[in-house]
Amino acid sequence: MGDLIGAVVESELYHIRRADFERVARLNASAPAIGALYADMARLNALYMIAKAGSGHIGSSFSALDIVTYLYLQEMKGPGDVFFSSKGHDAPGLYAVLIAQGVLPEEKLHVLRRLEGLPGHPDIHVPGLVTNTGSLGMGVSKAKGMVESARAKGEAARIFVMTGDGELQEGQIWESLVSAANRGMDEITMIVDHNKFQSDYAVSKTSDLGDLGAKFASFGWHVVRVDGNNHEALKQCFEDLRGVSGIPKVVIADTIKGKGVSFMEGTSIDSDVDMFKFHSGAPSADQYQRAVEEIESRIAEKLAELGAEPIKVAVEDRPKIIPPAGEQKRLFPAYTKALLAQAAKRKELIALDADLILDMGLIEFRDAYPERFIECGIAEQDMVSQAGGMALTGMLPVVHSFSCFLSTRPNEQIYNNATEETKIVYVGGLSGVIPAGPGHSHQSVREISALGGIPGMVMVEPCCPEDVAPLFDWCVDDHDGPSFLRLASMPYATSAAPPANWRPRKGEGYEVRAGKDGAIIAAGLLGVAEALNAADILAKRGLEIAVIALPWLNVIDAAWIADVAARYPLIATVDNHYRTGGQGTMVLAAIAEHAKARPRCVSIGLEAVPPSGRNDEVLAATGLDGASIARRIESLHGA
Amino acid sequence: MGDLIGAVVESELYHIRRADFERVARLNASAPAIGALYADMARLNALYMIAKAGSGHIGSSFSALDIVTYLYLQEMKGPGDVFFSSKGHDAPGLYAVLIAQGVLPEEKLHVLRRLEGLPGHPDIHVPGLVTNTGSLGMGVSKAKGMVESARAKGEAARIFVMTGDGELQEGQIWESLVSAANRGMDEITMIVDHNKFQSDYAVSKTSDLGDLGAKFASFGWHVVRVDGNNHEALKQCFEDLRGVSGIPKVVIADTIKGKGVSFMEGTSIDSDVDMFKFHSGAPSADQYQRAVEEIESRIAEKLAELGAEPIKVAVEDRPKIIPPAGEQKRLFPAYTKALLAQAAKRKELIALDADLILDMGLIEFRDAYPERFIECGIAEQDMVSQAGGMALTGMLPVVHSFSCFLSTRPNEQIYNNATEETKIVYVGGLSGVIPAGPGHSHQSVREISALGGIPGMVMVEPCCPEDVAPLFDWCVDDHDGPSFLRLASMPYATSAAPPANWRPRKGEGYEVRAGKDGAIIAAGLLGVAEALNAADILAKRGLEIAVIALPWLNVIDAAWIADVAARYPLIATVDNHYRTGGQGTMVLAAIAEHAKARPRCVSIGLEAVPPSGRNDEVLAATGLDGASIARRIESLHGA
Repeated sequence: MGDLIGAVVESELYHIRRADFERVARLNASAPAIGALYADMARLNALYMIAKAGSGHIGSSFSALDIVTYLYLQEMKGPGDVFFSSKGHDAPGLYAVLIAQGVLPEEKLHVLRRLEGLPGHPDIHVPGLVTNTGSLGMGVSKAKGMVESARAKGEAARIFVMTGDGELQEGQIWESLVSAANRGMDEITMIVDHNKFQSDYAVSKTSDLGDLGAKFASFGWHVVRVDGNNHEALKQCFEDLRGVSGIPKVVIADTIKGKGVSFMEGTSIDSDVDMFKFHSGAPSADQYQRAVEEIESRIAEKLAELGAEPIKVAVEDRPKIIPPAGEQKRLFPAYTKALLAQAAKRKELIALDADLILDMGLIEFRDAYPERFIECGIAEQDMVSQAGGMALTGMLPVVHSFSCFLSTRPNEQIYNNATEETKIVYVGGLSGVIPAGPGHSHQSVREISALGGIPGMVMVEPCCPEDVAPLFDWCVDDHDGPSFLRLASMPYATSAAPPANWRPRKGEGYEVRAGKDGAIIAAGLLGVAEALNAADILAKRGLEIAVIALPWLNVIDAAWIADVAARYPLIATVDNHYRTGGQGTMVLAAIAEHAKARPRCVSIGLEAVPPSGRNDEVLAATGLDGASIARRIESLHGA
Repeated sequence: MGDLIGAVVESELYHIRRADFERVARLNASAPAIGALYADMARLNALYMIAKAGSGHIGSSFSALDIVTYLYLQEMKGPGDVFFSSKGHDAPGLYAVLIAQGVLPEEKLHVLRRLEGLPGHPDIHVPGLVTNTGSLGMGVSKAKGMVESARAKGEAARIFVMTGDGELQEGQIWESLVSAANRGMDEITMIVDHNKFQSDYAVSKTSDLGDLGAKFASFGWHVVRVDGNNHEALKQCFEDLRGVSGIPKVVIADTIKGKGVSFMEGTSIDSDVDMFKFHSGAPSADQYQRAVEEIESRIAEKLAELGAEPIKVAVEDRPKIIPPAGEQKRLFPAYTKALLAQAAKRKELIALDADLILDMGLIEFRDAYPERFIECGIAEQDMVSQAGGMALTGMLPVVHSFSCFLSTRPNEQIYNNATEETKIVYVGGLSGVIPAGPGHSHQSVREISALGGIPGMVMVEPCCPEDVAPLFDWCVDDHDGPSFLRLASMPYATSAAPPANWRPRKGEGYEVRAGKDGAIIAAGLLGVAEALNAADILAKRGLEIAVIALPWLNVIDAAWIADVAARYPLIATVDNHYRTGGQGTMVLAAIAEHAKARPRCVSIGLEAVPPSGRNDEVLAATGLDGASIARRIESLHGA
C-alpha cells in the first residue's frame, strides 16, 4: 500500500488528475522511467473508468498500456503520426492516455460507456480516435487506406496499428498483409499486443497461431520482437525501426494480459487450463481495492525512486448501482439446457464456437461432450464453412457467436451453406441494442436484414426463457434447412410467457396481453417486455393495447397476419433492430399483401447507429423504452 | 491436325464418347501415358461443353485437368476419398472427367449451363459433386468440416481440395489453415492450381502472393511442389505424400492456365502486361476450330505412340445462336463514362477493384488515372476496409466487385465503414438472376436484404443506360454517406427511359408506362423491361397496367408511395432479387405504413435459390419473365 491516499475504501473510487501526468512527464528522469510510471498512472485511471462504468476490458487495456504510453510520449511527434487499435478492446487504457495528454477533456474520465461519454469501443466521434474499431481484423486494411490517401496527397504518414494476438485468427489480417508488402508500405507499423490470451482462454489453447514471426516474414513484413511491457526495450525497438524502409513493419510485443495487477495477470494462471477472468466486465469491489493498492504502491515507489513528490489521488464516491426493477430473466441458461437435451437425443449434433464459450453458454456442453465441441477461435468464416462441410456429411452443426459477428462476417459463407439446403442452426448471442456499453461494433441490430432474405433461412427469437427450448427444438426437429436463433444476452424483467403447452407454428405469434384499441407486435426479451411496458402506460391513459409476441423474425404466416390485421384498428411493430429490413418491415409488407382489413400501421425501431451508454439511457435515446413506444402509439392513435 | 475426324468445320462441335475413355483407361500403357491422353480427351470435351453453352471457364479447366484426371484415375480409390474444387471455375473440366468415369450420365455432356443440366459452378445436386463452390476461399474450411464428421463417425477420409492461386488472396484461406494444422488433419490434401493467372491478369501483377511455400510452411502445413501438368511428376508427388502423416498437406502445382492449346496458354502472353483472354466466356468459332485441331492432333499422336486405335469423335451441329430481340442496352459503358466524368471533376475520387477490371468497366479509368486506381486482388474485405481508411482521410473511394461478393463477403466491413458516416460508393456488377449460366454463387439476388438495413446506406439501380449517370452523380454529389449502385451486367432490350432532364429524387420513381388498372413497381434493366413486357401482354387482355421505375431499392419516400397507392387499385412489385427483403418488401411495408388508400398488393420475386441455365429458361422457371408476371397480375386482378 502506498502512502498516496491512505486506506482504499470499498465505497470509493480513485483516479489521478491530468496535472499529475503533466508533472510526471516533465520529471528529470529517463524516458523509460517516466514511461513506466506514466503507464501505471494510466492503469489506475483505466481501472477507475471501468469500475465506474461497471464494465470494460481490463486485460487488454493493461497489456497494451506500456506500448500506448511509449507511442504517445516518445514516438508520435510528426504531423502524420497516427495510432489506433484494431482490436479496440483496449479503449479504456487508450482513453486514459488521451486524457492525460489533453487530447480528450479531463471530465471524460468519468463517463466511460455513458451516453455522450466515451464509448466501449473506439469511435471517430471521440477526439483523438481516427477510426471505428471493435470488429476485429480490419486494422491493417484501414491503415493501408490511410497510407494511400497520404501518398495521393503527398503528405507524410506513419500509422501505428495495434492488433490483438487472438485477432490474428481473423482471415482479414492475412488478407491485408499481402498488398502492404507489395506496395512497400513502410508507413505502417503493426504492433501485436501478444498477451497470449483471448476472450476465454489462452490463444495457444483456443487456436494456436504457431510461429508468428515466421508467418509475418513469409508475408513479406519486417518482423521484430520486443518485451511490450518494458519501456527500455520499447525505446530500443522503435528507434531501430526508424531505420527500416521500403517494407511494412510488425512488432510482436510480448505482453502480459492484465499487466500491473498480480492477480489479474495472465501469467498468474495455468494457460493450458484456466479461463482468463479479466477480459471484460468489471472487477468486484474487493478486486478493485486490491488492484488499486498494488498499482498505487508501485506508483509511490517509482515516484520516491525518482525523488518526486507523491501524487494525491482524487477520490470519488463509488456510484450506487440501482438494480433494475423486477426479476431479471435470462435466456442463456434455458438455451444451455435445450442444447444439452438435444445433444443427448442426437449424437450427430456438434457445437462450434468462436472464442465465446462462456458468453454463449457452452461450458456445460463442452464438458459433457468434449468430442462434439469444436473451438474455432476468432474465425467466423472458417467456422461457418466448417459447419457447412459437417452438415453435408451427416452432422447437425450448431454454430455460435455474438450475433453482430455471426450475421455479418460469414454472411457469404452462410448463404453458400444455404444453397446446399443443409440443416445448420446458427445461434447468435448479445443480440439487440443492449447491453449498450460496448457500442455499435457489438450491438447487433442488423441480423434480420443481413440474413433474413436467404431462402430457407428461418430466424427466431424467444421473448422469455420458456420460449427458448420450443424454438430451438423447432429449429432442430421441425425445420429442414438453416435457422438462426437470435438470443438476448442481457437479463431483463418481463412478464411475457407463452400459452400452456405452446408449440411454435411457423410465422404465427401469440398474444401476451389483450386489448381492443390496437396491438403491438414484437419479438425478443427486450422488445416484448418494453411493448408490455408501453401497454401498461397506455392503459393508464385509457387505451387498451394488445401485445403479440411474434418469435418469427423473417417469416410471417399470411392467414395469421390477415387475422391479426382484422382484429385491431392499429398495429405497431417494435424492433430491437434497425427499422429498415427488420421484423416490422416483414410484418407490414405481409399486411399490405395478405390482409383484407387495413389497420393504421407504424413500425418502431432504430433509425440510426445506436450510441454506447447505460442501458436505460440508450433505450430512451433510441425510442425503444416503453415510454417512448407509448408516446408513438398515442400520437398515431390521436392522429 | 489429327486423322480422327478429318477437317474441323465451323458449323460443327466435337466430343469424345465415354466408351473411348474406357478403352483408353484400359490400354496396356504406363499410368502417366494414359493419364496425359485421358486429360487431353477431357480437354476436348470440356471445350465442347463450353462452346455449346456459349460460356465457361476454359483457362482453369485446362490448367487443372491433368491433376483432376490423375486423382480420379490413380489416387481416389478408397471409400472416403473425395475431391472437390474450391474455386469451382474449373467445373467443365471436372464434369468431363466425371462423365468419362461414368459418375455423371453421358447425356449431361450436352447440357452445360442449361436448366436441369450442369451448372456453371459446382452444386451438390449434380452426382459426384460434394459441395457448392464458386464463392472463393471456402474449400479448406469445408474440407475440415468433412474431416470432423469422418472422425466423429470413425470413418476413413481423404479430402483432396483444389484451390486457385488467385483464390489465395482471400483471407479465409489463411484463416482456415490454422486449425487444420493444430488438429493434425493429414486427411486433407490441398492442391493449389498455380496457373499464375487470375480473372484479369497475372497473379503477380494483380496482388503478388510472394513465396507460397514459405507461407504454407509457416502455417504448419507440409508443402510440396510439382509440375501439375506432368503425369509422371504427379504420380511421384502423390505417392510420396501417402507417407506423410499427422500434418495437412499442400501441393503447389505449377500449371499453365489454358494448358493444351498453344494460343490459350498463359505462357504465350507477357504476364507483366497482358490480360489473360480465356478465363471465362466462350472461344470464337475460329478459336474453337484451332483449339480442336491442336488437341486432336496430340490425341492422335499419343494414341499412335501407344499403338492404339484412333478415336472417332462424335460430331454435333453447332447450335444456332438466336440473338435476343430488340436493341440490347448496356449499363456498363454508361457507368464507365459517368465514373470518368466524376473523376475529372473530383481529384479525391479513387477507384478500387477486386480482380474484375474488365467486367466492372474500369480499364479506361485505370489508363486515365493510374495513380487513383487500386487493384486489390480477390480480397474484398481488405478492399472495403481500405476504402474505409481512405474515406476517413479525405478521399472518395468507389469500390467495385460483382454484387454477389461485394454485398456479402465484406458485409461487416461495409457496416463498420457506415458507422463512421463516411461517403463511399460501392458499385456491384453482375447483379440479378441473369446471366444465369454461372449459377447461384454468381447470381446476385440478395444485395438489398444483405445491405439495405445499414443506416445511411442508399441503394440504387438504374433501369436503362440514361439513368446510370444521374444515379451515380446523386451518390457522389448529393448523398452524404454510403451508397450502393446495383448494376446489371447482361445487355438487355428495354424501352424504359427517364423523363427529359430527370433528376433523381430520393425514394421516388417515375412512370415509364401509363395505366389505370394497376401498376407494377420495379427496378433495374431486367425488372423494368419485363414489367413492360408484362404490361404489353396484359394490355392485349384488356388490362391497362402502369409501369413505374423505382431506382431506390431500400428507401421509399412516404408521400410519393402514398400518392402512388392512391392512384392504382392494384400494385405489383417485381424484384430481380429474393422476394423477402427485396425492394417489394420495402414498397409494401411503406404502403401499409404511409398510404391512406389500400390497393391490392402482390410482390413478385425469387422464392428459392435460382437455377443455372440459359437466361430465357431461368427467367421463365423463376417467374421473372413478362409472361409469368402477367399471369400473376391477371390472377390477382381476377381474384
